[in-house]
Amino acid sequence: MASAPTEQLDRVFAALADPTRRAILARLSDGEATVNELVAPFGLSQPTISKHLKVLEHAGLVSRGREAQFRPVRLNAAPLAEVAQWLGDYRRFWAESLDRLDDYVQELKRKETRHARKRKRR
Amino acid sequence: MASAPTEQLDRVFAALADPTRRAILARLSDGEATVNELVAPFGLSQPTISKHLKVLEHAGLVSRGREAQFRPVRLNAAPLAEVAQWLGDYRRFWAESLDRLDDYVQELKRKETRHARKRKRR
Repeated sequence: MASAPTEQLDRVFAALADPTRRAILARLSDGEATVNELVAPFGLSQPTISKHLKVLEHAGLVSRGREAQFRPVRLNAAPLAEVAQWLGDYRRFWAESLDRLDDYVQELKRKETRHARKRKRR
Repeated sequence: MASAPTEQLDRVFAALADPTRRAILARLSDGEATVNELVAPFGLSQPTISKHLKVLEHAGLVSRGREAQFRPVRLNAAPLAEVAQWLGDYRRFWAESLDRLDDYVQELKRKETRHARKRKRR
């Protein structure tokens, strides 16, 4: 897979930096929806939802159907694959952090065992 | 792993939505650096780099050392693990998109073969 252009990643990350937009994506992961169907559960105005949809569409995260009246909104996950690819380079770092956490827990356990042995001897 | 609070994910995605901040993280993935060492390769002013570092620090993506004079900046990858966890729910969608892309390519190949056969017959 070719890596995403910088501006495309900027748009995708910016689009994901909002809880309503992430909730819209979560809703669309259950299937396409009309704008009206998206307005109902969020308790937000239709223009507000439409504005969020424009940001998501500009980032390529959703696309709209061509059926003139309803234009259902669909999830487009390809930009998320680009985010995953970008993240890939950093995977070793959090693996390392987990290893360090594991070492720390093992060290705590060893200390606890030594402590318990001392208590027994008393 | 517990899922990240919403505001934390907002901050992480917003921090990642800038090419300079992503470049700083890439530089730090090679090892810690002082602010001066970060200023040099980017051709940006020290206050600009410091502002970007504050955004990254607020998102938990970098931390600063305690050595008073230099306070080296270190990558902290834990928030990226949270992004990976969030992405996980969508993984099946891009697997599906890749499958669809593959189907499309296979269909193109079939068409091309039929076309080539027709040309031969002429």
